[in-house]
Amino acid sequence: MPWRGRATNATVTAMSPSIPQMPVLAPGWVWLVGAGPGDPGLFTLAGYSAMQQADVIVHDALVDERVLAFAPTGAALEPAGKRGGRPSSKQLDISRRLVQWSRAGKRVVRLKGGDPFVFGRGGEEALTLVENDVPFRVVPGVTAGVGAPAYAGIPTTHRDTNSAVTFLTGHNVAGEVPDGLDWRALANGSPVLVVYMAMKHLAAMTAKLREAGRRAEEPVAVISRATTSEQRVLTTTLSRAADDVDQSALAPPAVIVIGEVVRLRAGLDWLNAMHGGALVSDPLATRGTADTG
Amino acid sequence: MPWRGRATNATVTAMSPSIPQMPVLAPGWVWLVGAGPGDPGLFTLAGYSAMQQADVIVHDALVDERVLAFAPTGAALEPAGKRGGRPSSKQLDISRRLVQWSRAGKRVVRLKGGDPFVFGRGGEEALTLVENDVPFRVVPGVTAGVGAPAYAGIPTTHRDTNSAVTFLTGHNVAGEVPDGLDWRALANGSPVLVVYMAMKHLAAMTAKLREAGRRAEEPVAVISRATTSEQRVLTTTLSRAADDVDQSALAPPAVIVIGEVVRLRAGLDWLNAMHGGALVSDPLATRGTADTG
Repeated sequence: MPWRGRATNATVTAMSPSIPQMPVLAPGWVWLVGAGPGDPGLFTLAGYSAMQQADVIVHDALVDERVLAFAPTGAALEPAGKRGGRPSSKQLDISRRLVQWSRAGKRVVRLKGGDPFVFGRGGEEALTLVENDVPFRVVPGVTAGVGAPAYAGIPTTHRDTNSAVTFLTGHNVAGEVPDGLDWRALANGSPVLVVYMAMKHLAAMTAKLREAGRRAEEPVAVISRATTSEQRVLTTTLSRAADDVDQSALAPPAVIVIGEVVRLRAGLDWLNAMHGGALVSDPLATRGTADTG
Repeated sequence: MPWRGRATNATVTAMSPSIPQMPVLAPGWVWLVGAGPGDPGLFTLAGYSAMQQADVIVHDALVDERVLAFAPTGAALEPAGKRGGRPSSKQLDISRRLVQWSRAGKRVVRLKGGDPFVFGRGGEEALTLVENDVPFRVVPGVTAGVGAPAYAGIPTTHRDTNSAVTFLTGHNVAGEVPDGLDWRALANGSPVLVVYMAMKHLAAMTAKLREAGRRAEEPVAVISRATTSEQRVLTTTLSRAADDVDQSALAPPAVIVIGEVVRLRAGLDWLNAMHGGALVSDPLATRGTADTG
């Protein structure tokens, strides 16, 4: 039953005037902060507080504009983007810049999309800070592999479908399909796969999973620009996914979910329901019907 | 080199007086909100905003007291805890209560530890809401499988070690080791395993992984009460983990990380470094030494 007439897109700004017990970002420190998947509501209190205290905010291209807008007047916003197909700063240059700002006594926030330690290269940057004796802290964020499916109405785990979920990246540092992975074992061991940065090598990956025995009709969701106003979700099957994405206008970044949990979207797509869409209360009872493959 | 003399435990309360663009929690709605792993700084802005707007907050026992303290005067705090070895509310009762509050026109926050959709049974509760035509929204949180390792100085992914990570639960709804998992495939396919609720069946799980070919000396971290002042981290190996935990005073809840990423802790344990601990900048160069197995 649709929720039409009861949904709202209104926003509030009134909140408590302060949030206590947030840690102090001291001069010379660098905090590696996860910005979350996009929606500024998914940013953390500590991340927000860090931005308010920062002199310099060095941010990835993937960080949402609405999160960047939290930067106070007087804080320098420095892009340090690395993004497929666009000009990129070298990783080492970014780390060096963080060290320089620290030595200049600045309060530095290094703002990364999602979580710094989940396919975010936060470990590498932090080790460069250690090498240079720069004190740092990590502020985790909502990783895209959790946040994007949630905004598509897809739990990454569900009692009736899976007690394990694997997050993997669709390409390695060189831009290729990761070659160190045992795809057959992954296919057999992980009922649900969540792939970050998956658009580029989708055909190769789905072929590997098919060869490893995953079903052609297994449901797949491609979630583009998740948690933003440009979010689009394509539901398809493992055998059709690459072609369907080719024929769509879906743009990266995208997160791809492979597994039975995708079928829960028919019951749990709350974002669509807010705009009048209908939900069913028994989405897993529809196995094998045309809409999910 | 230690950061002694430069660390700080001070906290700030001064922030911007308001955080714009947070969605409205309307009467009759239920929001499933992730509270994060414990540290109130890891709670989301939308979750915080939802609590400020709530009439009723139905929370799990695992939600940190400091997050519950964000509840405004006038909001009813209702425990709905389910926790190993303690009295628990039945899942169906919780869902029914959410429906009742909604029908009474209350603004309801259902606050869950970590993320509602990652081993949080949020999908089940939401489907009961759908069945009863209760409008809902999901506010993801920082899941313990990401947040806990980060506070132990362990990235769940790292360029040099793994391009995949698997999250799994240490016991199923009946309290047993999940029987639907292909442990051999998991062991071969996932370089890093992060286990939720792992204390109870640690011996059985590590035995399965050993039988499946994982190395006896593979590094393991057991992270108890992560991101709280009671956080304790035990580093051990796959073959010794169960005995070491038995002989420790570690208390649940705990997250267990299995894989080479655990060795990064020697370089990235920022929390310990804040209290004077030393870090090394090349933690992966120490393979095979005694401290990590």
